[in-house]
Amino acid sequence: MSFLIDGLQYSNWSEEIFRQIRAGGVDAVHVTLVYHENFRETVANIERWNRWFERWPELIFQGFTAEDIALARVTGRTAIFFGSQNPSCIEDDIGLVEVLHRLGLRFMQLTYNNQSLLATGCYEAEDAGLTRMGREVVAEMNRVGMVVDMSHSGERSTLAAVEHSTRPIAVTHANPFVWHPARRNKSDAVIGALAQTGGILGFSLYPHHLRDGSSCDLDGFCTMIARTAERFGSHFLGIGTDLCQDQPDSVVEWMRSGRWTKMVDYGEGSKEAPGFPPMPGWFRDNRDFGNISKGLRAAGFAPDEVAAIMGGNWARFFAASFGAAQMASEGKRAAE
Amino acid sequence: MSFLIDGLQYSNWSEEIFRQIRAGGVDAVHVTLVYHENFRETVANIERWNRWFERWPELIFQGFTAEDIALARVTGRTAIFFGSQNPSCIEDDIGLVEVLHRLGLRFMQLTYNNQSLLATGCYEAEDAGLTRMGREVVAEMNRVGMVVDMSHSGERSTLAAVEHSTRPIAVTHANPFVWHPARRNKSDAVIGALAQTGGILGFSLYPHHLRDGSSCDLDGFCTMIARTAERFGSHFLGIGTDLCQDQPDSVVEWMRSGRWTKMVDYGEGSKEAPGFPPMPGWFRDNRDFGNISKGLRAAGFAPDEVAAIMGGNWARFFAASFGAAQMASEGKRAAE
Repeated sequence: MSFLIDGLQYSNWSEEIFRQIRAGGVDAVHVTLVYHENFRETVANIERWNRWFERWPELIFQGFTAEDIALARVTGRTAIFFGSQNPSCIEDDIGLVEVLHRLGLRFMQLTYNNQSLLATGCYEAEDAGLTRMGREVVAEMNRVGMVVDMSHSGERSTLAAVEHSTRPIAVTHANPFVWHPARRNKSDAVIGALAQTGGILGFSLYPHHLRDGSSCDLDGFCTMIARTAERFGSHFLGIGTDLCQDQPDSVVEWMRSGRWTKMVDYGEGSKEAPGFPPMPGWFRDNRDFGNISKGLRAAGFAPDEVAAIMGGNWARFFAASFGAAQMASEGKRAAE
Repeated sequence: MSFLIDGLQYSNWSEEIFRQIRAGGVDAVHVTLVYHENFRETVANIERWNRWFERWPELIFQGFTAEDIALARVTGRTAIFFGSQNPSCIEDDIGLVEVLHRLGLRFMQLTYNNQSLLATGCYEAEDAGLTRMGREVVAEMNRVGMVVDMSHSGERSTLAAVEHSTRPIAVTHANPFVWHPARRNKSDAVIGALAQTGGILGFSLYPHHLRDGSSCDLDGFCTMIARTAERFGSHFLGIGTDLCQDQPDSVVEWMRSGRWTKMVDYGEGSKEAPGFPPMPGWFRDNRDFGNISKGLRAAGFAPDEVAAIMGGNWARFFAASFGAAQMASEGKRAAE
């Protein structure tokens, strides 16, 4: 069975989008709950999802284990897996890792763009790696089965997380820096470390991560994936679209500026273009995954490789990652 | 008028201790509200103080401005000024700086022992200096009149705070590293920077900061102050006893381990001696400040210098620090 899985979305969720997800045949999506929310606000966001799950049970349900991907396929629905792009959700409390895992949080970034209590974000001038609390929290995430996601972290922190974590880590949504030198894209060192430790890289469709931005064409995107596979293998590659569909620009302001500054931080944007950039024409919403599959074929990937990149690798990663440590059948040690 | 002011205490407050403060003739005390508390918990701690202020109005009242020191003297009471040893009280929200200043918070450490969202604590292996949020928050503290306290911060972060802050900063409770090489004590570079920028250093009586710990004698302590004054001047020196009177050892466990680890962190202590160390015999409680005054005289300080160190320097620092930036009559620029 070949699955279609997206490693990251943060849309302005609605029945229309859920129906598009179904129309696109997406089996599972890792959705973002948190950019700067604290624990209580994170729980409120879970409550919103609970209402959506209750209202549209024929379209979506909450995923807790990798088996829920197959359940989604069999029942014609989409499994929604929760994640956080900021450890703000655990505040300063390591005990909240297990609590949030019980509530279904399966991914947590150790940092968003700035320094966190755990590690350094990619927008800081300097990166001192994992903090004391960061090392403790990674161990706790390893224990309960919450994936360390370093998509927005600095280089040194990312490599430190790979080294310190006893289980594979993820970069759910980013592209190679050599292809497009954006601050959010990842170095060869990081990509190589993911490839060698059972980790995973989700290629991003967010225009700021793309060469030529919104004008990036499908061939360019898929050729970039092919070049990455040639260098590092395709066994650890997936898609993490970073789709932020129907979001007002106030949301990207929240993402960037949170509550940490009284100024406006433009992040990847600029004063002239502060809002969400338009998505490439060949990936407007969840109905367009087929374009990527076709593009990967055209870029030279074999059908089984396309299937792996479009979901198979994520499915295997989910299976290795979401259970408690002693139950993990696959892991970093096994991959080495 | 010469004042007696303590730059830091965190006791298990009681009528007995308040009466000792009065018996000792202490005009003002900077008390710690926060070790790891978030905003709501900080407000709860303010509520506790409000009940004490209501219950013992003849002994204590909340200080908001430097004028309250003189008011305390005239009315035979002690002015209590609030401070936080951790920026956990503002969580990730720069707007809470002004809110907490309005509630009376006059000091905030940018870090306790660990990395914070703002800067690096002295127990981290590496110190990358002020973070993006740290620079923003220091500017906001400067604006409203909240003192940047770097007592528990790393060396580089401390020097960065001196440089970035437009107003003088404090190390409310620490001693020179050259006298006793504890992780919490301060380098010549830090002490020199305080001396030259209108800052202030409060000498600590906490045994882990003392040469020979609880056995440190009065002469050794006062000679250390004299050596510091010879090298850097006495104009920026005060006392910050770090008195933690009547606290159960569970409190020092909270200080050290907070919620950031599931292990026990022994901090300045050890597995063999995890609790609060006994205070030196010549400074058991607030009635013993006279011993320090006598010791300073014996160490060679003139009476006006003793008065400055025992409170005059703090009074001047309070006057320069607690008002909004445009109202500050003294400041770092003036001191330079």
